[in-house]
Amino acid sequence: MNSRKNNYQLSEFLLIKKYFAPFAGEGAFNLSDDAAEIIPTESMSLVITQDAVAEGIHFFPDDPPQLIAKKALRVNLSDLAAKGADPKYISLSLGLGSNWNEAWISDFAEGLAEDCKAYGIQLTGGDTFRTGGGFVISITAIGELPQGTYTSRLGAAPHEYLYVTGTVGDGALGLMARQARFEGLSVGENEFLIDRYLVPNPRIELANILQCFATASMDISDGLVGDLEKLCEASGVAAEVKSSKIPLSTAVQKQITSESNYLQTALTGGDDYEILFTVKPENCDALERALSTLPFPVTQIGEIISGQGVKVFDTDGQVIEFDQTSYDHSGENR
Amino acid sequence: MNSRKNNYQLSEFLLIKKYFAPFAGEGAFNLSDDAAEIIPTESMSLVITQDAVAEGIHFFPDDPPQLIAKKALRVNLSDLAAKGADPKYISLSLGLGSNWNEAWISDFAEGLAEDCKAYGIQLTGGDTFRTGGGFVISITAIGELPQGTYTSRLGAAPHEYLYVTGTVGDGALGLMARQARFEGLSVGENEFLIDRYLVPNPRIELANILQCFATASMDISDGLVGDLEKLCEASGVAAEVKSSKIPLSTAVQKQITSESNYLQTALTGGDDYEILFTVKPENCDALERALSTLPFPVTQIGEIISGQGVKVFDTDGQVIEFDQTSYDHSGENR
Repeated sequence: MNSRKNNYQLSEFLLIKKYFAPFAGEGAFNLSDDAAEIIPTESMSLVITQDAVAEGIHFFPDDPPQLIAKKALRVNLSDLAAKGADPKYISLSLGLGSNWNEAWISDFAEGLAEDCKAYGIQLTGGDTFRTGGGFVISITAIGELPQGTYTSRLGAAPHEYLYVTGTVGDGALGLMARQARFEGLSVGENEFLIDRYLVPNPRIELANILQCFATASMDISDGLVGDLEKLCEASGVAAEVKSSKIPLSTAVQKQITSESNYLQTALTGGDDYEILFTVKPENCDALERALSTLPFPVTQIGEIISGQGVKVFDTDGQVIEFDQTSYDHSGENR
Repeated sequence: MNSRKNNYQLSEFLLIKKYFAPFAGEGAFNLSDDAAEIIPTESMSLVITQDAVAEGIHFFPDDPPQLIAKKALRVNLSDLAAKGADPKYISLSLGLGSNWNEAWISDFAEGLAEDCKAYGIQLTGGDTFRTGGGFVISITAIGELPQGTYTSRLGAAPHEYLYVTGTVGDGALGLMARQARFEGLSVGENEFLIDRYLVPNPRIELANILQCFATASMDISDGLVGDLEKLCEASGVAAEVKSSKIPLSTAVQKQITSESNYLQTALTGGDDYEILFTVKPENCDALERALSTLPFPVTQIGEIISGQGVKVFDTDGQVIEFDQTSYDHSGENR
């Protein structure tokens, strides 16, 4: 409790200077100041989001610190991408677990620096502290978009079409593979799933297309079905999805074929950083042309209708019943 | 580890909606979206800062949740004030400790809502999750100021005068009083100190004055002497302070008189959310006139000189030697 310490290893001030200042942004004074200045670009809005990852909840204690840093950053970039925003700045709150050491911090900073460079992001600052328990990393990310182009999850309307990026379910099955590899899958397929779980690939290339075409959008980090329910509730609409249209990776498809229960896991398990969005029917042709330039697939999976709730139909046209439609990080887990 | 839970109490989504949405800002879509939109005011800069507080490190497990919320917010407002910025938005990352319950969240939200109202701040969003250990609350605060008026801690120059707001040492002695009340102090004096420790009073009224007069500025949350050292290092200067000029509350003064060791605690112990700043000699008269309108004292305590380091002189003109000049939250504490 704030009692004085004499045997500290390396002070917060020196740690920050050594590992994080090298990739700080212009307005951040080499992270030697209490805050940072952001000078907004004319006629642009800023988009702000903040998601934390905690040891034992969102990542494993023995995950490589470089990948923990990338995950902590990318879950936020996924939210920015879903709003159509181009990532610009991040602030880092680094809560050190009781078994921290300088090597952990050095590796963590290395991963974060790599991603900041890759995504063209400036670090504005933040703080470092001990949590008294496990590591807790909370990143705030700020992106930019032209004023008037923000895509919320509130704008979906009946007759619009539903699209999703990439493949669904890799994150949830990747978590399972991280715990115990699937016997029916090859080494490469297991690795693919684990990689999808460990290091999300935020769909930032979609941002401009969302600005032009999407009426509503969100990422599906808590699971496709539950997140679609949230989008529908926020927009005051319902949705119908055909499970046969939902894009699945070869690994997930193979696992579902061997045991059909995994379909539920794939559609509701979360940890997919893909984007779900809606488009007016008259814009679908132009959308599809724009999508063809992207380095990942985007698939039409269903339709918005009036009413409430989400129905997912199986190949026989029957409605699939889900035990639980999304993952929730705040509940009990014992 | 993200494994599915059936007996959760109240989902993150519902908790947020119930307790935090009522004081969300305009661009935050009742916190039902993944992010929030901030439309910058023309010709204004944004100032961003992020500081976390953790159970057992920055607050006691049995502190009232309302006060924990206010402390988590106000440590950030203090940083904004020190930069001359007017607080506008916050984002909240709420890491729930293993003994969380809905009453704790309700009380926490009540405290945060009160302060957001009092300071005119909009909540943009954030997230709620379980830490697996104690509570960890990381708030990102964003303020506004006219472009070109940001005050860093890098601009101090020789011959300038040093000022500090309020009284110094109340936070550090307040922490001690919170642990075991001082026998030599009255009930009221102990309460005063504890209150100063538990609920910082960020000096937001100083922001405009800093914009006009300060060459460098920072808050002294890690202790007056250590933070002054940081300001000097960042500015490439040295400083001389007379301890007799440092403003002390009656309670701290009384405790120092009874045992002189407490002077060191007061000047280096941290948890003071006061602002230290420098002003050119030719602007001191105008500054002093502006300061007279403030509801708290601001005191000239010393001078910037060329060189390196900070010297604090006692009443006999001798340099005071400090065991440790500032508090550091990241080190070992066993």
